[in-house]
Amino acid sequence: MKVGFIGLGIMGHPMARHILEAGYDLTVFNRTVQRTEDLVQAGATLASSPAEVALRSDVIITIVSDTPDVEEVVSGTDGILDGIRKGSVVVDMSTISPQAERELDAKLVEVDCSLVDAPVSGGDVGAQNGTLAIMVGAREGDLTRVMPLFEVMGSTITHCGPVGHGQLTKLCNQILVSVTLLGVAEAVRFAEANNLDAAVMIEAVKGGAAGSWQLANLGPRMEKCDYAPGFMVDLLQKDLRLVTEAGDHVSVPLLGTGIVRQLMTSAQALGWGREGTQILDQVLRSIGKSDV
Amino acid sequence: MKVGFIGLGIMGHPMARHILEAGYDLTVFNRTVQRTEDLVQAGATLASSPAEVALRSDVIITIVSDTPDVEEVVSGTDGILDGIRKGSVVVDMSTISPQAERELDAKLVEVDCSLVDAPVSGGDVGAQNGTLAIMVGAREGDLTRVMPLFEVMGSTITHCGPVGHGQLTKLCNQILVSVTLLGVAEAVRFAEANNLDAAVMIEAVKGGAAGSWQLANLGPRMEKCDYAPGFMVDLLQKDLRLVTEAGDHVSVPLLGTGIVRQLMTSAQALGWGREGTQILDQVLRSIGKSDV
Repeated sequence: MKVGFIGLGIMGHPMARHILEAGYDLTVFNRTVQRTEDLVQAGATLASSPAEVALRSDVIITIVSDTPDVEEVVSGTDGILDGIRKGSVVVDMSTISPQAERELDAKLVEVDCSLVDAPVSGGDVGAQNGTLAIMVGAREGDLTRVMPLFEVMGSTITHCGPVGHGQLTKLCNQILVSVTLLGVAEAVRFAEANNLDAAVMIEAVKGGAAGSWQLANLGPRMEKCDYAPGFMVDLLQKDLRLVTEAGDHVSVPLLGTGIVRQLMTSAQALGWGREGTQILDQVLRSIGKSDV
Repeated sequence: MKVGFIGLGIMGHPMARHILEAGYDLTVFNRTVQRTEDLVQAGATLASSPAEVALRSDVIITIVSDTPDVEEVVSGTDGILDGIRKGSVVVDMSTISPQAERELDAKLVEVDCSLVDAPVSGGDVGAQNGTLAIMVGAREGDLTRVMPLFEVMGSTITHCGPVGHGQLTKLCNQILVSVTLLGVAEAVRFAEANNLDAAVMIEAVKGGAAGSWQLANLGPRMEKCDYAPGFMVDLLQKDLRLVTEAGDHVSVPLLGTGIVRQLMTSAQALGWGREGTQILDQVLRSIGKSDV
């Protein structure tokens, strides 16, 4: 199986390297060509466009920033659709609109190809270690075909349903991450304003019904005012926009998620767009009593 | 050490039994006297009032419903203050106002006694198994004295600070439980409205940054429409009232917690006060698209 890889960012680069190291014939493309160099040195073929990647590959993996970027890579000038051969599969691992994935799939089906949507969670560390969680929307046959590739990039691979359902599951993930984080920020602020040692509070409660990944991992960083990004405010905002659009589409009011989105807008206004999401604690501080 | 125990409800009864079984001389009082019978049969002494419990005990444990109940047991007619001997310690394991604990402590200090506030989490199962998390506000000396009793009732015992800080930590616990639950309810509703299998979604995301006790334990119950109470809406509302009062006191706005409180008011209005808190899912359903 010949594999193409488009988008060698902080996530895509280590993912592509795992595929190369697993012995696949790999063709790569990236807007910033420097990021392809070490992969080419290690044996990958450099393509000059997404169309050329498609021409050389049976499976084309994409992982770029947002919905318009995926649309450009697939349907734009010299895009995947300009080079793709019958029977190929595009695997989009970006986090984008579920509706857009279904529309791209329809275009690919017209030329006897198909799309798999497979957004990931686990961050750059998960990408480096090959331990990503991969949430897959796909036809059964397509999933069977690309599963060996997922297995070199991730450790939890879930077939969530047909095309689009990978993205919908990722959006559920972002709802949970956001609202859980809000609870952590409120608890830390409440503790500090009452002269409780937040670190002691976290230790006391994290093993029970109050426990979460967000509390165990980001609670202590809030307490130490460590806002180095695990996941950046600007990226969460992009995902919460997708959540809001999809929620509106099915008429589900998302009260907690909506509040986090507005507070993260405030974080951006305060100049914290490139800080870690745990800066939510500082946003709450800015609207409460400032001296505690 | 002679121990008194006041309040033999769903939590207090198994806690008192652990103390009796650990070999302590135990005196008990409960408004509904029937709930004392098996303990008396097993060797406990029955008292006719909180004052009589205090007279017979070095350490008096209380676990009742709400702030006025604790105040009545301590300061009311035939209350603990009417019988307590110098040097005794009152250990209140109810979840009540931190401020009220400090006021009761001041009254006890006037008669050369003191108060320890030690609310718990872990539910009736934790009480039965002696595995409660106990969040303690106390002077060092008092804590050392009562620690052997905590060790027969709980498995995680944390000294959170001076009197009142046990309650403040418990309120942080309830903020976390509430807001995390809101995220779970929104994710489950979003999934269902989009024809995602919520059970598959939960499995896909629960091991990562979206994970929480609430998601792993209450998410699947929402998905199965199982609203049997682990923790009842009415009891959460009592705790959220305490959280709101304490948050107002230090001017910390609690946006997520406030929304959960209002949605739980809606749950009560819909007749679900005695259902489990995971009914939040149904409250969201009632304000969204009803046919999905």
